[in-house]
Amino acid sequence: MAGAAPSEEALRRALAERQAAVDAQAEAVRSLKASGAKVGVDAAVEALKALKIEAGAAARRLQAAVGSGGGAAREEMRQAVGNTLERKLFYIPSFKIYRGVAGLYDYGPPGCAVKSNVLAFWRQHFVLEENMLEVDCPCVTPEVVLKASGHVDKFTDLMVKDEKTGTCYRADHLLKDFCKDKLEKDLTLSPETAAEFKRVLAVLDDLSREELGAKIKEYGIVAPDTKNPLSAPYPFNLMFQTSIGPTGLSVGYMRPETAQGIFVNFKDLYYYNGQKLPFAAAQIGQAFRNEISPRQGLLRVREFTLAEIEHFVDPEDKSHPKFVDVADLEFLMFPRELQLSGEPAKLTKLAEAVSKGTVNNETLGYFIGRVYLFLTRLGIDKSRLRFRQHLPNEMAHYAADCWDAEIECSYGWTECVGIADRSAYDLKAHSEKSGVPLVAHEKFSKPREVEKLVIVPSKKDLGLAFKGNQKMVVEALEVTHLVLCLQFLRQVLSCLPK
Amino acid sequence: MAGAAPSEEALRRALAERQAAVDAQAEAVRSLKASGAKVGVDAAVEALKALKIEAGAAARRLQAAVGSGGGAAREEMRQAVGNTLERKLFYIPSFKIYRGVAGLYDYGPPGCAVKSNVLAFWRQHFVLEENMLEVDCPCVTPEVVLKASGHVDKFTDLMVKDEKTGTCYRADHLLKDFCKDKLEKDLTLSPETAAEFKRVLAVLDDLSREELGAKIKEYGIVAPDTKNPLSAPYPFNLMFQTSIGPTGLSVGYMRPETAQGIFVNFKDLYYYNGQKLPFAAAQIGQAFRNEISPRQGLLRVREFTLAEIEHFVDPEDKSHPKFVDVADLEFLMFPRELQLSGEPAKLTKLAEAVSKGTVNNETLGYFIGRVYLFLTRLGIDKSRLRFRQHLPNEMAHYAADCWDAEIECSYGWTECVGIADRSAYDLKAHSEKSGVPLVAHEKFSKPREVEKLVIVPSKKDLGLAFKGNQKMVVEALEVTHLVLCLQFLRQVLSCLPK
Repeated sequence: MAGAAPSEEALRRALAERQAAVDAQAEAVRSLKASGAKVGVDAAVEALKALKIEAGAAARRLQAAVGSGGGAAREEMRQAVGNTLERKLFYIPSFKIYRGVAGLYDYGPPGCAVKSNVLAFWRQHFVLEENMLEVDCPCVTPEVVLKASGHVDKFTDLMVKDEKTGTCYRADHLLKDFCKDKLEKDLTLSPETAAEFKRVLAVLDDLSREELGAKIKEYGIVAPDTKNPLSAPYPFNLMFQTSIGPTGLSVGYMRPETAQGIFVNFKDLYYYNGQKLPFAAAQIGQAFRNEISPRQGLLRVREFTLAEIEHFVDPEDKSHPKFVDVADLEFLMFPRELQLSGEPAKLTKLAEAVSKGTVNNETLGYFIGRVYLFLTRLGIDKSRLRFRQHLPNEMAHYAADCWDAEIECSYGWTECVGIADRSAYDLKAHSEKSGVPLVAHEKFSKPREVEKLVIVPSKKDLGLAFKGNQKMVVEALEVTHLVLCLQFLRQVLSCLPK
Repeated sequence: MAGAAPSEEALRRALAERQAAVDAQAEAVRSLKASGAKVGVDAAVEALKALKIEAGAAARRLQAAVGSGGGAAREEMRQAVGNTLERKLFYIPSFKIYRGVAGLYDYGPPGCAVKSNVLAFWRQHFVLEENMLEVDCPCVTPEVVLKASGHVDKFTDLMVKDEKTGTCYRADHLLKDFCKDKLEKDLTLSPETAAEFKRVLAVLDDLSREELGAKIKEYGIVAPDTKNPLSAPYPFNLMFQTSIGPTGLSVGYMRPETAQGIFVNFKDLYYYNGQKLPFAAAQIGQAFRNEISPRQGLLRVREFTLAEIEHFVDPEDKSHPKFVDVADLEFLMFPRELQLSGEPAKLTKLAEAVSKGTVNNETLGYFIGRVYLFLTRLGIDKSRLRFRQHLPNEMAHYAADCWDAEIECSYGWTECVGIADRSAYDLKAHSEKSGVPLVAHEKFSKPREVEKLVIVPSKKDLGLAFKGNQKMVVEALEVTHLVLCLQFLRQVLSCLPK
């Protein structure tokens, strides 16, 4: 009763010691029997039995601590809730009479009512309260747009294939399952190996393709259904591909996010807003992700309604006039450092997180606060809500900083909202690809005088110096100039989508 | 001023007569000149001039009547309205900075507000007022569902290809454009040819693939952009195809309508409704149609929000308790007979249309009335709204009867709502394909005694009669029995989706 519960590591160590004692005693019993000795055998056997009972108790204590029992209860609770929700038609596996499709779900009448209420509250809390500009773009998107945004090349998950049956798995999920399973069920794990598995779980989202492949090989992970060997991990693009128009020549994708529809409209929206920054645009609509092997019920699905906001702000002034309204909020924050050092999330005041630079700027902080208010007003338990910062490799290819609102549910801590500082990544990419400058201009209160050094090639001197090669040299100089222009353009791009 | 304006046919005839007089007089002048006669030539030339002036006046009268001038004004008005709506961001061609994609449009902030209000009113007018069951299903749909519904095989438009460049056109659109163009611009058309073109326009949607091909050939229609010859029409499936999951083996389509999501959930919804008929289910969501060459701005697009209702009713009792609420409504109806005989739509009382059988039943009539109320309450001008019955070949492959609410706009009379009696087509198709019976049961107030003749093969007698072939004969009999069962099942299927 008194004192803190022993740590999982202490329990593992205790179990290992008792198990070693059992092994030593068993060896002693064997030796005694082999030597034909009569005396002492019974006592030795009794001692072995006592040690085994002790080891058993240690194993049970460890078992209770690693929570495999709790996991079973969790699983049971989830099943019960899931069954009730399905029976009441909150949701239905889509195309059920055809045995369904993994990762696709319908909402039945009460589910539709909940969804419609949540969306109405979202619109009220974000769009109307902040006078955001709402847009509604198609899901079918031509390749050029998603090529520019980077999705065609980088919107991938790492996949491994059963080398005999061709069945596909998400590489990180297999590694995660392996480590969790070992930690929960293998009581003979040495404390060192347990610590290693825990470290892997903590940095799972941060592993590169090569690191993931090496771990899978090192641990000897095989296909869960067949125990066949697995291929090395390779990237699989998560976008549903299609073809636009009757010729079959025009590649399109179902949008994986609604944000790109906002970015390509930046210019029109900026003018609609009277050419003033900051402003925000919002969109509610379907997004599509061809998940490799979706599990986890409604949590990881192949089609879902996404509600997105892009807040465009001056990159040189990311203060937010309404930050004071949320500055005093205090909630669980889980910055990068705590994750990497294995510490838990910590109650933090938003004002402090921003002033210390944990959260990069006021605008990012303001939206973290607004999301906290949205979720808690929806009824989310504060003690099961935390804001977790992405690890460097985990961030989407476009993000400069990213915080997820995570909710602890029967699947563990689960991403629910992503709040990313995308910098001007998307606007720059679309400006370059389309040739339409997606920029905002700032009017200075006083005119500023800027001295600028402009290098103009003197064709006459070049002609004298390079003779026949003059044309080539002039061209080379022009290219350099163009590159400088582009870099200048990038600096001018003063729109930072949140 | 007095008397009715002369018909277009009379004007064509008058022009043709005057043109013939001009030709005859011109011939006379030529003869006179050729004969070297001096006398009478001047008078003949004067007469020719007078006849030409008369013919010119007749041409202008015809021109005014066929309304090519009106068409230009219409076009100008449409351009002006379109420009304003685009400038105010009601809508925006999607992916504009990449020069857009035909048939895809965004809604900007005011467009979103209008859309959201219309949808809220629709939900209020239909779903809430009638206690409909709302569902929300994914857009990505596995092939088996759309194979069962017939869309994989029959959801097509007829396409022709420029034989040299491969550019695709909708066959019926080319024929329509050709006929309209001739009627509006070719003043030398004989009244007979004009009548033929008009007949073609009236039955355009009713033409088979072969008839359409024959007309295109007969009129010598060529590719509008290049004047190259065209291929024969062939069907092009309008669904966007994709692939579900990482293996690439599972074909899927973006749903072309939301209704199938309702049908496959029939059983659950029927139980949810306490196993009682009638009931209705509704869905609002995106639908996708890969149109061959979309034009007409927002009217024919490749992705749009569809709001659908499926009302399930006892096929032996299609009366509707609330029909009295709409029975006295009077509006423009355009049944099949009027279309085929070339007469215009007629103001008709809904009660009369149902009692005369023009509209097949009370339930269909009730929903026609409710749609009329919805549209006029939205602000649609009654004089520009009509309900047009589909021609037999025009109906979707599943429909037993179909009425379109059409609105007259700058593109002419345009389908806006479709109200179809689909019979039990979809439920039967999904029952057969999935093996899950999608049926409703009726509780009779009194038990009914039914005498039923059941044929049971007597294996003994069959053995004596067929000897070695007995097994084959028994199998053949069992198949027949199965077919009878299926037919019986079809009769039992007592659910009629509206």
